[in-house]
This record gives sequence, structure tokens and C-alpha cells, in this order.
Amino acid sequence: MREDEYLQSLHFNALRLKENGSLVNMSLPIVLAIDDESKERIGNSSNVGLVGPNGDSIAILRSIEIYKHNKEERIARTWGTTAAGLPYVEEAITPAGNWLIGGDLEVLKPIKYNDGLDNYRLSPKQLREEFDRREADAVFAFQLRNPVHNGHALLMNDTRKRLLEMGYKNPILLLHPLGGFTKADDVPLNVRMEQHSKVLEDGVLDPETTIVAIFPSPMHYAGPTEVQWHAKARINAGANFYIVGRDPAGMGHPTEKRDLYDPDHGKKVLSMAPGLEKLNILPFRVAAYDTSENKMAFFDPSRAKDFLFISGTKMRAYAKSGENPPDGFMCPNGWKVLLKYYESLQAEESPQQPAVLSA
Amino acid sequence: MREDEYLQSLHFNALRLKENGSLVNMSLPIVLAIDDESKERIGNSSNVGLVGPNGDSIAILRSIEIYKHNKEERIARTWGTTAAGLPYVEEAITPAGNWLIGGDLEVLKPIKYNDGLDNYRLSPKQLREEFDRREADAVFAFQLRNPVHNGHALLMNDTRKRLLEMGYKNPILLLHPLGGFTKADDVPLNVRMEQHSKVLEDGVLDPETTIVAIFPSPMHYAGPTEVQWHAKARINAGANFYIVGRDPAGMGHPTEKRDLYDPDHGKKVLSMAPGLEKLNILPFRVAAYDTSENKMAFFDPSRAKDFLFISGTKMRAYAKSGENPPDGFMCPNGWKVLLKYYESLQAEESPQQPAVLSA
Repeated sequence: MREDEYLQSLHFNALRLKENGSLVNMSLPIVLAIDDESKERIGNSSNVGLVGPNGDSIAILRSIEIYKHNKEERIARTWGTTAAGLPYVEEAITPAGNWLIGGDLEVLKPIKYNDGLDNYRLSPKQLREEFDRREADAVFAFQLRNPVHNGHALLMNDTRKRLLEMGYKNPILLLHPLGGFTKADDVPLNVRMEQHSKVLEDGVLDPETTIVAIFPSPMHYAGPTEVQWHAKARINAGANFYIVGRDPAGMGHPTEKRDLYDPDHGKKVLSMAPGLEKLNILPFRVAAYDTSENKMAFFDPSRAKDFLFISGTKMRAYAKSGENPPDGFMCPNGWKVLLKYYESLQAEESPQQPAVLSA
Repeated sequence: MREDEYLQSLHFNALRLKENGSLVNMSLPIVLAIDDESKERIGNSSNVGLVGPNGDSIAILRSIEIYKHNKEERIARTWGTTAAGLPYVEEAITPAGNWLIGGDLEVLKPIKYNDGLDNYRLSPKQLREEFDRREADAVFAFQLRNPVHNGHALLMNDTRKRLLEMGYKNPILLLHPLGGFTKADDVPLNVRMEQHSKVLEDGVLDPETTIVAIFPSPMHYAGPTEVQWHAKARINAGANFYIVGRDPAGMGHPTEKRDLYDPDHGKKVLSMAPGLEKLNILPFRVAAYDTSENKMAFFDPSRAKDFLFISGTKMRAYAKSGENPPDGFMCPNGWKVLLKYYESLQAEESPQQPAVLSA
């Protein structure tokens, strides 16, 4: 981003297009930070080559501009807090340089990660082509950064049913797990992708009406600000319905005993966001484990005591103790993938090895 | 403000009107905080009376809603920092209650301050009527919270000249000093109003083409966020040209040795703000004291050494030492008003009296 785009993103969560004056939602700035030394090296050059970790040329940034990276202001306006311990801030902003470089980006070739998952990394254009090929007349997107349990599946299948009832003939689900940075206690991408495959193999989700692709963005955990980006990016990729739940992209406050965001603000802010007026928001009905029927079901407050909420922490506790979660929480093959992952973590944490603080 | 307006203001700096979908700029939330006790007293009432400091009824808030006042988030998204020492935060937010109350406001009668200055407190409607009465074909607004020196006057008179050159026949200046909270080292409103009167009496500004009125807003010192409010409020009052300078509504960072905002961001953000697309922004040319001609003049970088910048701190130093500022810095009768004020401050601070910490 150039500075004028960066400022609009931070202050207004939207960019005004020069061509026609319309507003495009853009709640997170997409910027490249450089340090004093890189700025010095660039000097008066107007074009800069961008290289990957192996030194291979990836893109050219033309007619560049370099402007100040005021980290405190960026953090405060994006997260609504500057408290220490925001995962993405510690990962990517605090250690970054004090300058931002923007310009006209020319990407030379598709980005490859060479991690065995590149076939899942479909560009927005590729996704739109795939929806056309499948003759989808509605595309509903589900953002996730966690393993799919049967509660998620229930709501995705229920959404499809509702869309059919609304008259759509061929609604397609875009199951779009986030593939960039996540915090240390989230399940890593490769494990999640394996788990998602099992969910499709086991028929919990229908492979005929589901496309699984990786959303390459890093997770910001920036709540109401980030959920706009999550929705907007999926609209760009051809989705016209977006499923949004309680406290989307939220987390606990890093230094206080409370949620960082009001759990209702994400949906409210998304529904009013500039540039997303045509978005169809599908509110997420809360699913939980119904102990009276031994399956995941939509929560019924009139018999709240029948329901069990199984958090990520709880799931991990099951895996650690070797205990299975209740029948019907997750398809057995999907659970096996997680069990294997959590067992490997326990091996690392076992007393035979010296204790290591995670970075 | 209700919560949906509050959220739009914080996240987007603009409200979408339900009537026609258009965006109205609103960068600062206008909210009323209440504490737990008031919330308890209100209970299930749907209408609430608002009373002044003397207990007299001022307004009714109808169909109320009460929602959480997340101060940290409000501060971070408004100021781009949560550092201790932001004047308005310490004055009005930190001590306020943890709830906000919004609703449909019915004001029962015009607000009076009874400080001898109420005749300057013209409503937007009154101002628009006054511009009509004077048959203004252009209204240019100048926001200020400081005494008017001849540099300010130069740029206001120069602006009028430019508007005449553009073909306007009767441009009127709205000199609109801020009348609400200001930080302790700013000159108080009553002194400033007296000083402004002298500036008009001495003919530094032409009373025939100038309207002086009080802008009742408190000063937030929130830079690029606040300058939008400063401009938008004046447009509401009938102005169509807004003069904006370097670092509008800015201040030093409260805990670091730097400006809180990039001095160029205010103008940039204002020029891109949603809902202000039709605003005519008049960039402020920097004026300084030209020692070669003994008058305030537009700064000429080619002979920078001839120019003297006289800050508020410097002005106070002149007054404290009993020294006059250079001839032509401010009209003599205007300076006398300030001199009297600063002398009264020194009397308070003199060693004959016990030292008192200002509140």
C-alpha cells in the first residue's frame, strides 16, 4: 500500500477508488516494512525487486514511495488496544522496520510454499473459475482456523439447506481455512488440512458441493476490524454469502481477564461496513454437544443444561489424557489426526526432555 | 449516540444514513457515559431526562439503549495511542462511567452557559441564517483555540482575496474559536474572546466580512481523527471552504519526545474522509515573523533565516518577562489582553503565594 491507501485503511476501513469514487472495504493495511538499512540501499531508486526467502525474484514494486511506519498508531487503530501480547503484533509488527514501502506491484509468478499444500492455494480468479465450472448459483464461505467438528459441519450443512429453501439450485461451500500465521496454541495448517480431508472423506461434508482451499492471510486476531477483511477477501474470491459467528477473529484480552472485543461487535461492525453493503451475512447459530441426543446440535437455551461446550482447550485436554471426546463431536478419522498431533506435542513436552519455553 | 452509531464512528469515521444510504462524516463519537448507579436507577425506563449542573431540565433522551463503554478501545481507535496523559481522556473519559446511554434526543431549550458569552454561541441554524442575511456567496471557516496573531490574520485575509479572485463576490469569514475543554496551558475562552474583539476593533480583520462565534466542542487533541469533526461541524453551520494547516488538532506525544501525529496526516486524512467529498479544503500557508520587513509574512524557504517562528510558549515567555513581541506580530490592543492574562497567571505563581498544583 501507498501512504494514502494505508491512511484510508487505518482511519476508514475502506479505500475510495480513483476511477469511479466508489468505496472498497479494506480494514487491514497490507504493507511491507523495511528498516533503515534497506531504505538507505534503495536510495533514489524508483523500482524495487522483491525476493523470496531463497533469494528468487517474486515481484517488482514500481514507482515506490517510502513513508513512516508508526507502529503504535497502526496497532491502536487496528486492534483498539496497545497492550503487550497481541500475537500478530509480536510476530510481525514489533520486530519490523520503521518504514513502509508502497508502489505498483507486479507479481512475476504465482507464490509457491513447496510444503505439499500448494494445490490448495487457489487464487481468487482460480476460485471464481472453479465456482463457474461447478455451475454454482450461490457460494457461501466459512472462515476457520480450527479443526472442523460436527457442530461446524451442522451449521454448514444447515446453511446449504437454507439456501436451497431460498430457491438456489446449486449452493457451493467454500471451506477456506486460514493458512498464514496463527498463534502458538492453534493447530498448525498441515494438521488442519489433513483433518479437513478426513471430514470430507467421512462424508460429514459433501465433497460434491464443497471446495477446500487455503486462505493465505495471517491471522491478526483483530476482531471487528479483521472480520471485514475475512469477508471482503471471500467476496473477491466469488462468495456471495458469508457465515459469521460470535466474536469472529476475537481472542482474550492479552493482559486483562476479559474478551478483547464485545462478542457481538464483529457481526454488527461487519453489517455496517463501508464497501460491504451487498454482502449477505448469514448469522452463525451456536452449536454445542447435546448430551440428551449424543450429537452436536443447535444450542437450545430452554434446556441449556443438556449442552456441553467443547473449546479448543477442552479438546486438547481430551487428547492429552488419551480420552476420546463424546461420540458425535467429531468424525472418528478427523479426531485421529488431532490425537496424533496432540500426542506428538506431548512427546515434545514430556519430562524426558528439558523444558523449553515456546517462542 | 446509540451503539450502532458509536461503532460506525469509531471504526469508519462515518455514519450511513438509514433514509438514503449516504455517508455522513462523524469521526468523534458523541456519547453520554453513566456509572453503575445511574444505570441501576434508570432500570427499565425507556425515556430519561437530562439535567444541567443546576438541576434544570435540558433535554429528554427517548427509547434509550445502554451499552458498554470500553474506554481502552475508544481511546485507542480515536487517538491511535493509549499512552497516559492525553488531556481529554484524563478530563472526560477515564473518570467517566463504564456504560454509554444513547437514544433519540429532544432538546427542551437552547443551552445557556451564563458566562457573558452566550451571544457568541450561535447554533448551526443561526449561523446559516446570518450568512444568508449577509448574502454570503462563499463562507470560509477558521478553527482556532489560540489568540489571533497577524500571521493568522494574513492567511484569513489572503484567503478572502483568493476567493474574490475565484469570482466570489461576498466571501464571509467564520472565525470560530473552540469553546469547550482545552488543556491547561491553552489561553482560556473568555480571554481569547476579548482578544478576538480587539483584533476586529483594530481592523486587523474586517468586521464587515467576519462573523465571530463560539464552537462549543471540547478539544480532543486527536489530530487526523478530530480535524474531520472540526471541518464537518463547520460545513453543517454553512461553511463551504475550510482552512487547514500543519498538524491540525495535534499535540506532542504525551510520553515520547515526538509529535503524536505526522504533521501531514491531518490534511491527507481530511482530503480522503468519507462524507466530506464536497468539502473545499484550503491549505494553510505557513506564516512567520519576517525580520527583514518587521511583519508577519508567508514563510519563504529561500530566505529561511529572515523568519522567526513565535510559538505559544515563546509568546508566554515574552509576556512573563514583560517584553513585547516584535512589532507587527499582533495588534497592540490584542497583545494587551494577553499581557494582562499572563500577568495574572504570574501573580498566582509568584513566590508570595503558596505553590498550588493546577487541577
